[in-house]
Amino acid sequence: MLSRTNLTLTALVTVIATPSLAVAQQRGPEVADFTLANGLELIVIPDHRAPVVTHMIWYKVGAADETPGKSGLAHFLEHLMFKGTAKNPTGKFSQVVARIGGQENAFTSQDYTGYYQRVPSDQLKTVMEFEADRMTGLQLTDDVVLPERNVILEEQNQRIGNNPRARLGEQIDAALYLNNPYGKPVIGWRHEMEELSRDDAIGFYRRFYAPNNAVVVIAGDVDPAKARALVEEAYGKVPRHNNLPPRIRAQEPPPVAARSLTLADARAEIPTLQREYLVPSFATSKRGESMALEVLAHILGSGSNSRLYRGLVVDKQVAVAANAWYDASTLDLSKFAIGGSPRPGVTLTQLEAETDAIVVEVIAKGVTAEELERAKTRLIADAVYALDNQASMARWYGTAMTTGASVNDVKNWPDRIRAVTAEQVQDAARQWLDKRRSVTGYLVKDVSPQAEKRS
Amino acid sequence: MLSRTNLTLTALVTVIATPSLAVAQQRGPEVADFTLANGLELIVIPDHRAPVVTHMIWYKVGAADETPGKSGLAHFLEHLMFKGTAKNPTGKFSQVVARIGGQENAFTSQDYTGYYQRVPSDQLKTVMEFEADRMTGLQLTDDVVLPERNVILEEQNQRIGNNPRARLGEQIDAALYLNNPYGKPVIGWRHEMEELSRDDAIGFYRRFYAPNNAVVVIAGDVDPAKARALVEEAYGKVPRHNNLPPRIRAQEPPPVAARSLTLADARAEIPTLQREYLVPSFATSKRGESMALEVLAHILGSGSNSRLYRGLVVDKQVAVAANAWYDASTLDLSKFAIGGSPRPGVTLTQLEAETDAIVVEVIAKGVTAEELERAKTRLIADAVYALDNQASMARWYGTAMTTGASVNDVKNWPDRIRAVTAEQVQDAARQWLDKRRSVTGYLVKDVSPQAEKRS
Repeated sequence: MLSRTNLTLTALVTVIATPSLAVAQQRGPEVADFTLANGLELIVIPDHRAPVVTHMIWYKVGAADETPGKSGLAHFLEHLMFKGTAKNPTGKFSQVVARIGGQENAFTSQDYTGYYQRVPSDQLKTVMEFEADRMTGLQLTDDVVLPERNVILEEQNQRIGNNPRARLGEQIDAALYLNNPYGKPVIGWRHEMEELSRDDAIGFYRRFYAPNNAVVVIAGDVDPAKARALVEEAYGKVPRHNNLPPRIRAQEPPPVAARSLTLADARAEIPTLQREYLVPSFATSKRGESMALEVLAHILGSGSNSRLYRGLVVDKQVAVAANAWYDASTLDLSKFAIGGSPRPGVTLTQLEAETDAIVVEVIAKGVTAEELERAKTRLIADAVYALDNQASMARWYGTAMTTGASVNDVKNWPDRIRAVTAEQVQDAARQWLDKRRSVTGYLVKDVSPQAEKRS
Repeated sequence: MLSRTNLTLTALVTVIATPSLAVAQQRGPEVADFTLANGLELIVIPDHRAPVVTHMIWYKVGAADETPGKSGLAHFLEHLMFKGTAKNPTGKFSQVVARIGGQENAFTSQDYTGYYQRVPSDQLKTVMEFEADRMTGLQLTDDVVLPERNVILEEQNQRIGNNPRARLGEQIDAALYLNNPYGKPVIGWRHEMEELSRDDAIGFYRRFYAPNNAVVVIAGDVDPAKARALVEEAYGKVPRHNNLPPRIRAQEPPPVAARSLTLADARAEIPTLQREYLVPSFATSKRGESMALEVLAHILGSGSNSRLYRGLVVDKQVAVAANAWYDASTLDLSKFAIGGSPRPGVTLTQLEAETDAIVVEVIAKGVTAEELERAKTRLIADAVYALDNQASMARWYGTAMTTGASVNDVKNWPDRIRAVTAEQVQDAARQWLDKRRSVTGYLVKDVSPQAEKRS
């Protein structure tokens, strides 16, 4: 199962070599949106090019909904959801998906947990019945829970523990959010993961897994009316949860102090500079602000034409890598990141000074009309090309529906990007790329005698 | 009402000019310890020098027990506890205390909330009856809650908002604890305080205020048997709370990245360097470790003979102030702080380098026998002199009983300090004064054109 901490709109799509505005004018399919009597929401994205369907269920619960001290629980439950019900013992669902030639996976973020299957379209009903069954029927015993805890601990080891950059990111997140639960890693703090129990998992499951806390997204070879009938049949009988807890995201105090941190790791062969700024997400931003941040991230740090790449790698030759990204898709405050790795012989301090100079220039002078057009064209083209991928489309809608956006927000996204002005981009840079809102992380090689032991 | 974030054993006592070992050998009074059938604990510290008694009730609940998003609630409730019951309307209790010539106050920390009255000893029963009445009888209406919220907001303004060093401390705490609730300020994040409601306060009160979550400490002119009878009579009828929530302190992940932060404030006339290290408290430490940290803090930064003062202020003349302190009295992990202010013309970077050199020297070479003896003598003498102050004694016991220590731990504290060795002090420095465990804060004057607006 894969655990994802970020899902940006731009990250969803394949990179295309030569986008064109003509393509960008294209429109997507007619997306249908229904809500069942028990509160389950259904999004259908028809796509009849092949007799295949992608079925996803998105629960509006993620790592940020965990109780303090129980980090990693949302992701642990994601794993445990494959452990069977009274009707379908462990492994049965996965065996059936495999037998009909399907694929399956699952993912957890701060705000949502999702499960999906891609199967021949005549098998849609089959996977829905399995999914509806495990919405409330999960059965867990210690003999399946405890070995699975070792699995997530090993996953933590691979993804974070043995990955110096991921460790850096974990520390930056923890220092960036002073109050909001997004400061905890989605996979969990290892010492808390080690203590997660069957009761923790079942308690979390019973609190949050319910039709009125879920969105089914179906993309593929099915018509909306038929999909709706199938969903009614499979999921309609699952009772509504009458005591669903509210989604609490403790708000950040105004950020007033620029922070930095240094992580020394014996395996960090290449030093890294990474800075994250606390910025609005799509859901928390005023109209247009989030789009301006998307455009700004693109201009600053996406690809070899970007300000950071051109300035640091090509012109000044102080870096071997430079980039920027922004995650719009979170229920509460999000982050805007810039970073890079210095060329050998260049210090992180030098790289930071040159990076700062580029940021300061964008704040002071804004972006050019040409940069703006290039960024918008590319972002819109990427979105249009995303229509071509069933799973990407479904993920885009699922992410939107679980992070405070709507079907219309997804549909209108290209138009909103198109409307971004150079002034808005400069305003976004001025307002949000303020060091007091940021944590700057330095990843360096640990060369101390104890380094071996520490890592 | 006063809100206290730290209460160290050494902070409890008056500073005495010439401590002597002879005094330090003195023993305190016989302290009695009872538990009522309803779970209320009672500590009696007889002191018959004057016909006065100090009555305190300590609840085992503080800011760290607040629900995420509701910071400041423990302290807010402390204020609201003066708003009356069905039996005793608002102000009655305070009026009676004033009329009988008494004093009263209250305090909140991360781990406890306390209320006290100092009254003529024949009035002990009177104040106990008021205190027992408001343990479960508090009545709150919006017309008293909302104005009191303005009071705590103004208190936040005075204590933190208008105090650059307190703002620095708030930011350091928030960056020091990545997972533990101690990262939140006791007084609350202002934006959350603004939203606290009557229901929040009553809900918190009902969850945590109960005889089996409280300790009554009586110091003064009363004998233990009489005190017990009075307590039985006043508090014995309050029913036990059968669903008392556990005291959860989410544990910190291993600290791996040295952090720093810069706070610019237009009112910061003198720059400040402050570093806090995450260290064990008395309750979380292995035997002797916490005492070694007390001795270390004293040697490093208490008074004009301390390493930091001598090194930075006297010898190198780079600082106008230098100090160190350690807070042993927390239920979970605590902090060890060092800091100072540079002499005009000296940068914080220079001061930090010189400070680091002194810390490194203690780690490398330990402390001298003379420093060790002087520190131990002083700490023990301070503790003995604390016996002289009724309120200090009561506070010492109350703090101990609500932060995981026992009556015997308080009694044995001087002996344990006496047993600390130079090796233990050096070990403590080596193990805990590790930059990866720390946040270094820089307070500088904000000289930007927007500074006025920001402050």
